[in-house]
Amino acid sequence: MTASTPLTEQNLVVNGDRLNTNIERMAKVGRQPSGNISRLAFTPEALQARYLIQQWMIDAGMITRIDAAGNLIGTYAGTDEQALALATGSHIDTVPSGGKFDGVLGVLAGIEVVKTLHEQNRRLRHPLQVIAFTDEENTMIGCQAIAGTVLADDPDRYRSKAGIPIQDCLESIGGNWDAMESAGRSRANLAAFVELHVEQGAVLETTGKNIGVVQGVVGIRRKAITITGEANHAGTTPMGMRKDAMVAAAQVILAVQEIARAQPTQPVATVGYLRLTPNAVNIVPGRVELSVDMRDIYKDSLDEMLRLLEERVGAIAQQTQTTITTSPLLCVEPTLAAESVQAAIAQVCDQLGLSHHSMPSRAGHDSLEVGRITDMGMIFVPSQAGISHSDDEYTSPEQCTQGANVLLHTLLHLDRQYPC
Amino acid sequence: MTASTPLTEQNLVVNGDRLNTNIERMAKVGRQPSGNISRLAFTPEALQARYLIQQWMIDAGMITRIDAAGNLIGTYAGTDEQALALATGSHIDTVPSGGKFDGVLGVLAGIEVVKTLHEQNRRLRHPLQVIAFTDEENTMIGCQAIAGTVLADDPDRYRSKAGIPIQDCLESIGGNWDAMESAGRSRANLAAFVELHVEQGAVLETTGKNIGVVQGVVGIRRKAITITGEANHAGTTPMGMRKDAMVAAAQVILAVQEIARAQPTQPVATVGYLRLTPNAVNIVPGRVELSVDMRDIYKDSLDEMLRLLEERVGAIAQQTQTTITTSPLLCVEPTLAAESVQAAIAQVCDQLGLSHHSMPSRAGHDSLEVGRITDMGMIFVPSQAGISHSDDEYTSPEQCTQGANVLLHTLLHLDRQYPC
Repeated sequence: MTASTPLTEQNLVVNGDRLNTNIERMAKVGRQPSGNISRLAFTPEALQARYLIQQWMIDAGMITRIDAAGNLIGTYAGTDEQALALATGSHIDTVPSGGKFDGVLGVLAGIEVVKTLHEQNRRLRHPLQVIAFTDEENTMIGCQAIAGTVLADDPDRYRSKAGIPIQDCLESIGGNWDAMESAGRSRANLAAFVELHVEQGAVLETTGKNIGVVQGVVGIRRKAITITGEANHAGTTPMGMRKDAMVAAAQVILAVQEIARAQPTQPVATVGYLRLTPNAVNIVPGRVELSVDMRDIYKDSLDEMLRLLEERVGAIAQQTQTTITTSPLLCVEPTLAAESVQAAIAQVCDQLGLSHHSMPSRAGHDSLEVGRITDMGMIFVPSQAGISHSDDEYTSPEQCTQGANVLLHTLLHLDRQYPC
Repeated sequence: MTASTPLTEQNLVVNGDRLNTNIERMAKVGRQPSGNISRLAFTPEALQARYLIQQWMIDAGMITRIDAAGNLIGTYAGTDEQALALATGSHIDTVPSGGKFDGVLGVLAGIEVVKTLHEQNRRLRHPLQVIAFTDEENTMIGCQAIAGTVLADDPDRYRSKAGIPIQDCLESIGGNWDAMESAGRSRANLAAFVELHVEQGAVLETTGKNIGVVQGVVGIRRKAITITGEANHAGTTPMGMRKDAMVAAAQVILAVQEIARAQPTQPVATVGYLRLTPNAVNIVPGRVELSVDMRDIYKDSLDEMLRLLEERVGAIAQQTQTTITTSPLLCVEPTLAAESVQAAIAQVCDQLGLSHHSMPSRAGHDSLEVGRITDMGMIFVPSQAGISHSDDEYTSPEQCTQGANVLLHTLLHLDRQYPC
């Protein structure tokens, strides 16, 4: 944009320098001598970060509040008093040794979008909210509260990483466990939610695309599988007389791969944990415990994979003369992104001359929960080498700015599109 | 045999009651409160057992001596002063928690054979030796000394289970490390060796046969395999971008099975040890270490299996985008039983009305080493449920007696067959 270009919605852009400077400022909060960043929710570092965010929200023209789950919500008033809110945001807490983009980018880009509008004295028709969700990396209590999915009768599930009861955690940041329901949102007050996040995988880098248009956030089906064979002398037991639990396990592992690869929805499936007993060079394995983790954005596909897994496991047990039992470890339902929001993001990318790629989000996000109660969309920017949850996590300043501009224009697009 | 039957070689039988009584007497030596028997070589319990064996040898008309490796050798003189020795025997040491048949049966049956001959005032043409080999369950130094395969420059390989230097161990039982070579035997002084042993597997029980005619004692090729892939987020890494070390390991495990099952020589192969890193439910496995143990009585088959393994491993590495390295852990050459001794055992079984089954010995035995320097054969009797190295190890009194009678007549057969 040159000085002579009239400032229209088409060429409105965020201040990339400011955004990236703020990312660096935030990276100093909780930085460890190792370089990793540690801002576990409810710690002094996380509180310091919240305070900074709150100041930046206020500087950008927002009014801030804290809901019962401790979510920090900044609201930039719209021109239509009756309009439902549009919202964006992400989280500012990190894993124990995290990087400087995961979560933070979405919050800071949301604030930068509002600041850009505020500087231009522009308002949307809809109120625009930026939400810094509570404890995404551990309990996900912030986004669950908004989605109304907190298990109110099981507070022990929501203890902090340090083991502090959730009631105390929430009180320390202005929340209130007993008023959790009051944090719930719905289509009645939230028209749509858009989250900008780093990919945390290498799909964009590998495909050479600027922006990921997220189709949905995967659900998870996780199973524990126990295979019981018969431990026996590895010398004196002929092949035909064995009940080798490891051979059965190998077949299960390959079946898991085949099942995932055969699904047209491109799920992932992993056997990441395996324990062998007695685990001795000269003994036929008697018992194997292993985990199966399957992820897809389509519930039907997850259910079909589980059905196929049970079928294959039954056949493998019979063929290897072992006993195989499966038990559920985790079941998280997926959330699809709204078609309308996906279309808006893709169209914005085309307008801005950015290449884009439709893809599932295979990591969990605040959007997973918020998408259960209203239209949701996610914008991904590339992660170098797919690395995240580490000091090596990297997205270039240019890529961060591109993401923020796509977020800005997507919100402008939705503001036009959604009725007030 | 009734009282009126003339006592000929054909109907000569051992005293089964005496044999089984002696097995029970020996079982009291080293019996633990748990019921298991612990007679580790060079311990007071093993010395007590040796003393008992020596007395029984002398009672059976033998002259005893102890060689440099501590082998206790009883010799029952033959009628031909020029004749080479025929020998039988096994070991009286046990694993830390052993049973009462493994090893002991072969020594006590050998003594019972001589006692039977002695009671009838019968002598073979050949001197008949009964050998109680030293430390079969750990160093195998006794049989190795006779075969001349002791690694004289590496005494540390031969420490006792308790860590006592082999020199001290041998001294405590009348042996002498520095004179090890003097224990060596050859065809020049040992015409043939026959060992009676419990099967330690379930082949005879499963096939319903009385006697196993051993074709050879398996050699072992043992490899350590390390698979290096790339640890990655189990959610965000699409199937096509993974370098999953566990998937490669599963393929290796199944390849090992296929290789063994395809060999006509009926080898066994086992992946008994596996270690996965980082071994977390939500991380694509980055590294797997595993063991491969292959056993066959034919050296060519072992070498071919190793060649096929390397070939398959190379293909699997390429297909899974992992790096796979293999390194040798153990290489023991197999020993084939002499055709002549196998034929003698089978013929004797037929004469005695006992069913028999030709089979490899897939466990190691003193015969493995002795078979390297002279004609060797082994007679197996059934192990209930294939169990050994445990208090549950069981072979019935009748089966023990059958084995001893086959041993007796096989030695008589070889005495006629082998030149003096």
